[in-house]
Amino acid sequence: MTPTTFNPGKGAGSTVGIAILGYGTVGSQVLRLMVENADEFAHRTGGPLEVRGVAVSNKEKHVGTLADELGLLTDDARSLIKRDDVDLVVEVIGGIDYPRELVLSALRSGKSVVTANKALVAAHSAELAEAADQAGVDLYFEAAVAAAIPVVGPLRRSLAGDQVQSVAGIVNGTTNFILDAMDSTGASYDDMLAEATRLGYAEADPTADVEGYDAASKAAILASLAFHTRVTADDVHCEGITNITAHDIQAAKAAGYTIKLLAICDRLKDEAGHESIAARVHPTLVPRNHPLANVHKSFNAIFVEAEAAGRLMFYGNGAGGNPTASAVLGDIVGAGRNKVFGGRAPGESTYANLPIANFGDVPTRFHIDMTVVDIIGVLAELTKIFAAHGISLRTVRQEEGTEKNARLLVMTHEAKESDLAATVETLKDAPSVIKVNSVIRMVGE
Amino acid sequence: MTPTTFNPGKGAGSTVGIAILGYGTVGSQVLRLMVENADEFAHRTGGPLEVRGVAVSNKEKHVGTLADELGLLTDDARSLIKRDDVDLVVEVIGGIDYPRELVLSALRSGKSVVTANKALVAAHSAELAEAADQAGVDLYFEAAVAAAIPVVGPLRRSLAGDQVQSVAGIVNGTTNFILDAMDSTGASYDDMLAEATRLGYAEADPTADVEGYDAASKAAILASLAFHTRVTADDVHCEGITNITAHDIQAAKAAGYTIKLLAICDRLKDEAGHESIAARVHPTLVPRNHPLANVHKSFNAIFVEAEAAGRLMFYGNGAGGNPTASAVLGDIVGAGRNKVFGGRAPGESTYANLPIANFGDVPTRFHIDMTVVDIIGVLAELTKIFAAHGISLRTVRQEEGTEKNARLLVMTHEAKESDLAATVETLKDAPSVIKVNSVIRMVGE
Repeated sequence: MTPTTFNPGKGAGSTVGIAILGYGTVGSQVLRLMVENADEFAHRTGGPLEVRGVAVSNKEKHVGTLADELGLLTDDARSLIKRDDVDLVVEVIGGIDYPRELVLSALRSGKSVVTANKALVAAHSAELAEAADQAGVDLYFEAAVAAAIPVVGPLRRSLAGDQVQSVAGIVNGTTNFILDAMDSTGASYDDMLAEATRLGYAEADPTADVEGYDAASKAAILASLAFHTRVTADDVHCEGITNITAHDIQAAKAAGYTIKLLAICDRLKDEAGHESIAARVHPTLVPRNHPLANVHKSFNAIFVEAEAAGRLMFYGNGAGGNPTASAVLGDIVGAGRNKVFGGRAPGESTYANLPIANFGDVPTRFHIDMTVVDIIGVLAELTKIFAAHGISLRTVRQEEGTEKNARLLVMTHEAKESDLAATVETLKDAPSVIKVNSVIRMVGE
Repeated sequence: MTPTTFNPGKGAGSTVGIAILGYGTVGSQVLRLMVENADEFAHRTGGPLEVRGVAVSNKEKHVGTLADELGLLTDDARSLIKRDDVDLVVEVIGGIDYPRELVLSALRSGKSVVTANKALVAAHSAELAEAADQAGVDLYFEAAVAAAIPVVGPLRRSLAGDQVQSVAGIVNGTTNFILDAMDSTGASYDDMLAEATRLGYAEADPTADVEGYDAASKAAILASLAFHTRVTADDVHCEGITNITAHDIQAAKAAGYTIKLLAICDRLKDEAGHESIAARVHPTLVPRNHPLANVHKSFNAIFVEAEAAGRLMFYGNGAGGNPTASAVLGDIVGAGRNKVFGGRAPGESTYANLPIANFGDVPTRFHIDMTVVDIIGVLAELTKIFAAHGISLRTVRQEEGTEKNARLLVMTHEAKESDLAATVETLKDAPSVIKVNSVIRMVGE
């Protein structure tokens, strides 16, 4: 959508008034850095940035903090946003419904908004973009994906002249920490989740991370930007890492792979040349020589393939107070400059409006780990099952089993998700298959 | 410098007229992609992009090309630039003096400029930025550093709210190809240069690449952006890779390192707290577990450390017609949007105006490879020499030598470049030192 209102700017040297909504880890870092480096920010923005207030739900909780000392605390976010001397609203509260109301109110009042809220952007991008367009103001959200790693900006601007084919990202630090620790120690999922919690990498309730919901929000944002199409979190097929076992990791390692939770966004083309897109989050076998395999601990990385640019990767800290504050502050300078000098950042771009593919039609490859009856002829039977579904096998490895059973590890060639899924269902009922232990998708060759 | 003129924009849907100067590998890809994807570009820019002409020095050479078929070729660049229906000039000629004249003429005529010309930007950024500011137009040069890898944009925008501490980049694909091939095959510099030439990674005259001049231009641009200070190629200390031997590579490998040609930009602070900056290009020992060590073949990568963001890395194709065209096209969309909707991109930012440190004052570490007389007491003598210059040793390894000589490999702790250089001079005259074979700096621990 193109802007309908034009913002001529306040003029060089004008003050930009800022409201900060939320004063947790990110909000307090944002305020501290703005106060400490006020001169730098004035130079970079073209005029001084002045914080008019910091809205919190309970002022008592923040007594003695910098915001309190500066007399900035308020528990009336709605009034703060509407103040005439506020040009720019920074939303770092989290959650969806309450920040949605505040952000919409800010945009409709002609204030530009900077948010770090991936869940909000992934759920309500259309509504937010329309409000920003109608008021001719900016909506920035670099921090919503992979914190300080510039990826929203590069997709919106640097790659604006290119055609993105795919994006594959490690966009959740908690799950990467757990999987990386399982890979390096051989320990179980439960033990490494406990370790992540102990070290502060996982929250008390880790559901949003380990079930992939956080990554799915980011996948929706990345797919929207990459393919100029509106994609929400509901459009993203999502599987978490809770079923990954130490044996899965060990088997992957033995075959030259590691397991990562990836957010994958693909541009697809059917035989008739019709394009569609797919966004998905699931555990994925990645070859150990792939750049994404070497992203360790809680680091994030986004791998982009574009028609002209080829392969690009962006790597860094994907979470935490300081890295998130860095991204928020970069957006504040950007939105602030537009308030001073006029102009607007590129807004939502949805002109391509590509259909979302059925998940069953997405091409992928499976790694299937099953326990089979160790008798002569079992391989022939299984091969027939794969062939009947049109699936060809890439590798078959046999692990030593217990007693008279064997563990069979099969990697398929690329096929439709639905055909692969149907094959797995048939395998489960095959006489020679005792159990299908795990099914993990593969990328990257 | 802040803009003095304000550009209100032509309005949504307006056509942006474009002049392309130069029709080599990059120029022809830019034209092709603009023609093939015209609808996409119109959506992304907010109005159609129309190429008004392609300026070349000799039209005869380009008969039958797309530019010829479209009737766009002209040998009069000066007139093309000044046409009233040209809003945006794309400079992909290369060289310095002639493109400088054309780019200045374009900016002074109120045309925004997109250039891929690192040598021009590194040599004349001040003059170009002033001309752009006076006319209130944009100067974009994402392609000047590492082609399609977004790094100019991220430094200018995404990290605008952060404090960059250092930038270390592999910004020259030719030298990375040669050093990577030496590392993986054990072959000599001359052999791998010949291989690079044969495969098209090195030009017939490889001087600008192998002597580090190309990387020095990029270092100047990166340091200017990172530190908000004007840095030209003349401010960059520059050493190439022509003296790197197979033995250097093998010794580095044995110690867990690889050798990369790095462009290093540092923010320094003396005891009194005064800040300065240094930009340098030289072969560098990088630990093999450092992300930059895993950048192979002709790929580029830029590693950035910032106060709040922490460590970031940008990786991808740093050269070639298509990747360079991708960056140029992204800039065309950005500059085109500003022509349509008004506003300007962030211009040159030099407010910090930090002094350039003397190269002798830069802290670094040395790896010194020398042949010594293999007698008892030689280690004691050498240790004294280092101590006399205030240098402490980190590791000392002895290789087996020929006859009665030994090869000694010393890694120092961090010290001032001038003290390390003086130590090497003293070593050369020491009775027990037969030869100082090589001195290579180190980074990354």
